[in-house]
Amino acid sequence: MDVRGGTTIFDSVPLDALRRRTSQKWRRYPADVLPMYVAEMDVPQPEAVVRAVSDAMRAGDTGYVHGPGYAEAIAGFAAARYGWDVPVADCRLVPDVMLGIVEVLRLVTDPGDAVVINPPVYPPFVQFVEHADRRPLPAPLGPDGRLDLDVLAAAFAAATTDSRRAAYLLCHPHNPTGTLHTAAELAAVGELARRYGVRVVADEIHAPLVTAGRGEQDGARPRFVPTTTVIPSAIALHSASKAFNLAALKAAVAVPGPDARADLARLPEIVLHGVSHLGAVAHTTALRDCGDWLDAVLDGLRHNQRLLSDLLATHLPAARWAPPDATYFAWLDLRDVPAVRDGADPARLALDRGRLALNPGPTFGAPEGVGFARLNLAASTATLEDGVRRLASALA
Amino acid sequence: MDVRGGTTIFDSVPLDALRRRTSQKWRRYPADVLPMYVAEMDVPQPEAVVRAVSDAMRAGDTGYVHGPGYAEAIAGFAAARYGWDVPVADCRLVPDVMLGIVEVLRLVTDPGDAVVINPPVYPPFVQFVEHADRRPLPAPLGPDGRLDLDVLAAAFAAATTDSRRAAYLLCHPHNPTGTLHTAAELAAVGELARRYGVRVVADEIHAPLVTAGRGEQDGARPRFVPTTTVIPSAIALHSASKAFNLAALKAAVAVPGPDARADLARLPEIVLHGVSHLGAVAHTTALRDCGDWLDAVLDGLRHNQRLLSDLLATHLPAARWAPPDATYFAWLDLRDVPAVRDGADPARLALDRGRLALNPGPTFGAPEGVGFARLNLAASTATLEDGVRRLASALA
Ligand SMILES: Cc1ncc(COP(=O)(O)O)c(C=O)c1O
Ligand SMILES: Cc1ncc(COP(=O)(O)O)c(C=O)c1O
Repeated sequence: MDVRGGTTIFDSVPLDALRRRTSQKWRRYPADVLPMYVAEMDVPQPEAVVRAVSDAMRAGDTGYVHGPGYAEAIAGFAAARYGWDVPVADCRLVPDVMLGIVEVLRLVTDPGDAVVINPPVYPPFVQFVEHADRRPLPAPLGPDGRLDLDVLAAAFAAATTDSRRAAYLLCHPHNPTGTLHTAAELAAVGELARRYGVRVVADEIHAPLVTAGRGEQDGARPRFVPTTTVIPSAIALHSASKAFNLAALKAAVAVPGPDARADLARLPEIVLHGVSHLGAVAHTTALRDCGDWLDAVLDGLRHNQRLLSDLLATHLPAARWAPPDATYFAWLDLRDVPAVRDGADPARLALDRGRLALNPGPTFGAPEGVGFARLNLAASTATLEDGVRRLASALA
Repeated sequence: MDVRGGTTIFDSVPLDALRRRTSQKWRRYPADVLPMYVAEMDVPQPEAVVRAVSDAMRAGDTGYVHGPGYAEAIAGFAAARYGWDVPVADCRLVPDVMLGIVEVLRLVTDPGDAVVINPPVYPPFVQFVEHADRRPLPAPLGPDGRLDLDVLAAAFAAATTDSRRAAYLLCHPHNPTGTLHTAAELAAVGELARRYGVRVVADEIHAPLVTAGRGEQDGARPRFVPTTTVIPSAIALHSASKAFNLAALKAAVAVPGPDARADLARLPEIVLHGVSHLGAVAHTTALRDCGDWLDAVLDGLRHNQRLLSDLLATHLPAARWAPPDATYFAWLDLRDVPAVRDGADPARLALDRGRLALNPGPTFGAPEGVGFARLNLAASTATLEDGVRRLASALA
């Protein structure tokens, strides 16, 4: 199948319109740089979200957030997409996923305690854990990009040796690898967490973005398994901000597992103060009314995964990459590319020589990310083609 | 002058349209309650802000915040309105004023340190300081609602006796009293702060809302004096969210005094992660393009201050109140009202008997707020008339 002629939702905003955007992706670098970094998608907003936000502005409905609407929308979406029964009354609104993670970590750990993370992982995990006066304790993913249970057990043992209380910050699906943890893996994590007394905090922001398995037998199809359905003492963070490209309008929901309700109930009421009412309005509308838009994004991502495989095979055969199960990222293993073998950072070369902005692998953790780069797949066919050509010539 | 016939910006949104809003003010209580509490104004949004937000949504410009635009807008506004030269390059964006205060307190104090506050004061001051593991140390305002320098000196002495580093969280203008601190008062505060080694953090969110002095000789007219122009080691927080009714779209800017630049420069970069791009877009537009709208709000507030004086004189003469210099609040001293004299909370009586929601005085600090209630003046003539009648009959 020649996918290059195909048109996806990512082809619907022309590059010059994207370049008029004022967000980080389009303004951090000069105009000769092609931005394929940072978690912003090159998509139009769903019409219903545009309307909901515009209508609220027009009505002057710009006060403080109130009520369970956003948690109900998360629950409706989760029931439909994951078959998950979210306990709405026990959920808590938080300003965004990262600030929610910090607040939840403060409920279940003390200053100085260890928080286990799995590098390579979303860089703010380390930064926010440190800023919250906790200690990030790395338990690297295995070479297959999956959880390594022995490494995790050793990290849990170390964490609980020198912490009063320890936590595990799970990224599910995992950024940047796109790994979707299985029910069996989660069960094993839960068993380790129970054994060592480690609390699991699951960042599930990428949960709506599972691309794997479409077209396969339904039984064989990988799907998102909510952490708290397997680990009852876990607390999960959900948000529409990644799947619906709403980073500009922040909001998130903390969802407790059946055995974590009392802990989350201790969240101070003032945390709600930081939640954006219009963020909640936008996210609620997205989750409730924009499933077709999201399906178009997922179709486009599947298309772009095939396209990228094809382009890499043609232009940069030394790159190692396989389409991930989830997220809109491609975590490129460039260690076999000759220009990278001597320790050069491929994202640095891409920027300097190719005027292509990628996320540098080492920012996700070193040594795990050395020789890697993260590329954003939520882009047009033309951008992907241009991007891979820039990368190939930069690394030539 | 009979002001009751006058029409202000607060008369432009009918009550039934306000009741369709989904924010806290309009949804927390049943429909038989008239809400005159919480800091939301009964106004339409400025047309330019509606357009800027709608256009950004339409353009899909919904990624992460970038650049100095918001700080530049604060600076332009401050130059025009306060004659203040804001050091844009040294400013830092923060998610909102309260989260910004917490981040700044973390720069200049340690866990367990004292943070001096002036009750009666905006309730989150205590809640956020405690949640940040600092100790709120009360230095009550004087009976005239102004800073009491002797009380402040004693608090600074106590704070620095048992804290490694101490801070003073100044509310300027002051919520709920509407007190506008003078240059002389700020100079005296600066002298005390220097003597005791206390760092001043100034919440200046209400700065655009100075209503005093219009029509007087310009020389005699009270105006907002930025704290950092008098106290060089202070750090101030500014935002368009109160003056332009944008609580739903959070964002704020921390502004260092000339001697606080190095401290604010230590703010971790990840604090920017929590800042809403659309919040910054909305606030920037408001500050840059909506001066006329703000002047209409200020005119309406002056009108409503006169109206409230008049209504109280007619319906509740035992209430003591004088129009404040700033903010859109009326801090009503109801201690001489017979129904309140026996210790009943007037806001409780207002809600239970009058179906009128006010902010209870004791939530701003006890004993300072006992017998008081805060009423929101940013409302229509009809709402103010109905509200005072409900209050008078509830307290009869
Ligand atoms: C794993 C993960 N968590 C959190 C976030 C950011 O979420 P928020 O902006 O709600 O803090 C991202 C953004 O890319 C992410 O990839
Ligand atoms: C003195 C004061 N500071 C801060 C705030 C809230 O600001 P933000 O929502 O930006 O935290 C208010 C809101 O009424 C206020 O009165």
